[in-house]
Amino acid sequence: MTGTVYLVGAGPGAADLLTLRAARLLAEADLVLHDALVTDEVLALAPRARRLAVGKRAGRPSTDQAVINRLLVRAARHHRVIVRLKGGDPMLFGRAQEEIDALRAAGVPHEVVPGVSAGFAAAAEIAQSLTHRRLSRSVAFVTPALARGAEADDSWADAAAAADTAVVYMGKAEAVRIRDALIARGVPARRPAVLVEGASRGGIVAGGSLGSLEALAGRAGDGPALLLIGEAFARAAADHAAAADEGDAARSA
Amino acid sequence: MTGTVYLVGAGPGAADLLTLRAARLLAEADLVLHDALVTDEVLALAPRARRLAVGKRAGRPSTDQAVINRLLVRAARHHRVIVRLKGGDPMLFGRAQEEIDALRAAGVPHEVVPGVSAGFAAAAEIAQSLTHRRLSRSVAFVTPALARGAEADDSWADAAAAADTAVVYMGKAEAVRIRDALIARGVPARRPAVLVEGASRGGIVAGGSLGSLEALAGRAGDGPALLLIGEAFARAAADHAAAADEGDAARSA
Repeated sequence: MTGTVYLVGAGPGAADLLTLRAARLLAEADLVLHDALVTDEVLALAPRARRLAVGKRAGRPSTDQAVINRLLVRAARHHRVIVRLKGGDPMLFGRAQEEIDALRAAGVPHEVVPGVSAGFAAAAEIAQSLTHRRLSRSVAFVTPALARGAEADDSWADAAAAADTAVVYMGKAEAVRIRDALIARGVPARRPAVLVEGASRGGIVAGGSLGSLEALAGRAGDGPALLLIGEAFARAAADHAAAADEGDAARSA
Repeated sequence: MTGTVYLVGAGPGAADLLTLRAARLLAEADLVLHDALVTDEVLALAPRARRLAVGKRAGRPSTDQAVINRLLVRAARHHRVIVRLKGGDPMLFGRAQEEIDALRAAGVPHEVVPGVSAGFAAAAEIAQSLTHRRLSRSVAFVTPALARGAEADDSWADAAAAADTAVVYMGKAEAVRIRDALIARGVPARRPAVLVEGASRGGIVAGGSLGSLEALAGRAGDGPALLLIGEAFARAAADHAAAADEGDAARSA
């Protein structure tokens, strides 16, 4: 038999931010291969499936991508509906292309089901639009995270600096590098910045400026976090500023 | 009474790409104010609501934003659950901030429910990831569309040119301007480009290169379309290239 592999976006965390299609596929799934960051409340939508955590979590060893690719191809020989569940949307920082290419090469039917990326949930949480008629007509989604063995490379910062709004994924541990790279490219240190951790699940929100990015990151916990940088976030940056950070921002700016 | 206004992402078009939360709110809604581009199959999820089309459609007169803002504030006095339904995600090119600011100023309870933006549905449709370990660590979402009365301004092109991957919203009618602005900023004319119209609803896909962008746009129909530009789309650009466009691309490159 040959099953179908669905690469499905698990959304930002809250189970009711999955799509209707994702929920239907999870209910039907025989096997679910999921990233470590996919929440238990989301996995509860797949009661009959065998579940296998294959994902990555910052700072911990993760299943090798080639192993995941092989697992997906083999799973299609033994199961009818296989869901490869990825946090947010599969096509943004999810290494989906490597899995798709492996499935294509092996002739395994596959389909991608888009999801709500964390950046949108973060904007919803702070009620600040990523774009704004007067302040922002461009949004850059970037990450400073590198492929294993890759040489340090700050080309992501060119896009973040050129865009009116920057959304930085997997950047919490790199706050100093992000701040310095953007300031070196002419972004003003006083540009508003907001950290949102655990978007859609009532996580931490901290506000300040690009200059105070290190202090913002310091207010985060253990969860996945996003950094939102842009004039569009001025109100949220002020609303969520702590007294300590404001001093810090003033010194840096 | 004071109801709650939910700014809800309607997703890219297919009704089962709404979130579970969006579907629940539509089922409960007393009043739905929706953009013209929201599809009938999506509106069918709100059987008991009064529905009001307030949206914009390219080239046709649309309800003034100030009128929409006032409608939302007033609706909260007469209804319990009001859904403001916007195509894709509310926080990307949706003028959500103006509505949120009006609701805040009037003290009306409100909440944003994120959705799947069309760019992600387009990537899913062509099975090409927006990011790629080696080819793309930055994605710019931009639009050349201007606010009414605004002066022509190509600053959106800086972000699109600096990013590894560019996703251009509302750009079909501006293909020549987009091509010229990106080439003027050093993007090679041979960079792969794909047009996706009616993402998630089995629409048109056309592949070529930045140099052939005008021909690509010419293959589109009447619906909303996206332009995806980047090395990450090389396979889809080739798969969906028509013979006529390939000649055009070769001449432009």
